[in-house]
Amino acid sequence: MRALIFDLDGTLVDTVYAHIFAWQKALAEAGMALEGWRIHRKIGMSGGLFTRAVARELGREIKAEEEESLQHRHGELFRELLPERRPLPGAVELIQFLYANNVLFGIATSGRRPEINASLDVLGIKEETVIVERGSVARAKPEPDLFLACQERLRVSVNDCYVVGDAVWDLLAARRAGMLSVGLLSGGYGEDELSQAGAFRVYRDPAELHRSLDELGLLP
Amino acid sequence: MRALIFDLDGTLVDTVYAHIFAWQKALAEAGMALEGWRIHRKIGMSGGLFTRAVARELGREIKAEEEESLQHRHGELFRELLPERRPLPGAVELIQFLYANNVLFGIATSGRRPEINASLDVLGIKEETVIVERGSVARAKPEPDLFLACQERLRVSVNDCYVVGDAVWDLLAARRAGMLSVGLLSGGYGEDELSQAGAFRVYRDPAELHRSLDELGLLP
Repeated sequence: MRALIFDLDGTLVDTVYAHIFAWQKALAEAGMALEGWRIHRKIGMSGGLFTRAVARELGREIKAEEEESLQHRHGELFRELLPERRPLPGAVELIQFLYANNVLFGIATSGRRPEINASLDVLGIKEETVIVERGSVARAKPEPDLFLACQERLRVSVNDCYVVGDAVWDLLAARRAGMLSVGLLSGGYGEDELSQAGAFRVYRDPAELHRSLDELGLLP
Repeated sequence: MRALIFDLDGTLVDTVYAHIFAWQKALAEAGMALEGWRIHRKIGMSGGLFTRAVARELGREIKAEEEESLQHRHGELFRELLPERRPLPGAVELIQFLYANNVLFGIATSGRRPEINASLDVLGIKEETVIVERGSVARAKPEPDLFLACQERLRVSVNDCYVVGDAVWDLLAARRAGMLSVGLLSGGYGEDELSQAGAFRVYRDPAELHRSLDELGLLP
């Protein structure tokens, strides 16, 4: 039995650019202005790792309460910028197909409830589906914990898991978990960045992944 | 005499992600929702080429008045999202260095006046500097017209021009103009995307370009 483990933001829902812009504004307001492209390349880490990486890049320290207030402000700005979640092309159909054909899958995201609920709703994710969120594990991507927790709850072996993600952090975490990975361009990374991080295939978006499931050896 | 020809947005000022998000919102409001990454990879074309490319991607036609209203709304949203322009790291110092050392340079942008004035001001661009904007030529990037017009006004030969840009559209236009080109990661493309489009060197941002001018054979 093989299983797919999906990242959420940028992989199934089109949220990356709103996250980038929300972080850029939240950081600038706190006197920590940072270039858009540097923020983009950090999206997909957990919020905590993200703010610490930003602080290091700016050569300053960041206190726990400052980190918390940045994360809070990012959340506010994100909801203002993107009041409605939009599934990426083919995401809803892919999820429906997996349910209909009993292909096992789970979701492992650096996001947290309740923030991720709107994305799960718009994708038609069922209650019984395995969802591992940031709060469920000690360490977020690029540590392998999220994917390993998802794999355990899916009750399949590491070797039988295929991670699907849009960020290099997903692909690095997959390698550290000992899992194969597939990259999607829908988070705005280039194809080579994803291949070099370990993706053995790169597709444009969930629609192209859906058309290509045979290439992954996932279908019976 | 060699000369540098700079793109503006994403190359000298940190505006790409605000442009992406402004386009995404303007398009969604007009019922033409499109994924962030697809918008990102079109930034740097002229606004007119951009809206037509989007329309084709969505499989519909776009009338001249609709195109105009999209561009107008994009401009409004852009100014709302990013009231202040921020130079990319090292951009102001690089420009000052070029002036102080009599290294010839110009700016060739798909943007238009008066929208680009705030960017030129924040960079400390002098009145006498050659600026070729979208309105000055018939066809924008990836056509070579902007770079060729800049080269003519700089009175140097095509062979002596180095284009500096962050988007594949800059690099393709440079090749069509017969000019060497240098890519910057500050617009959010991956390094391989820029190399494959023709950049013979790729730097992170203007600061790294400044430290590397010797590698380009530009200094006496």
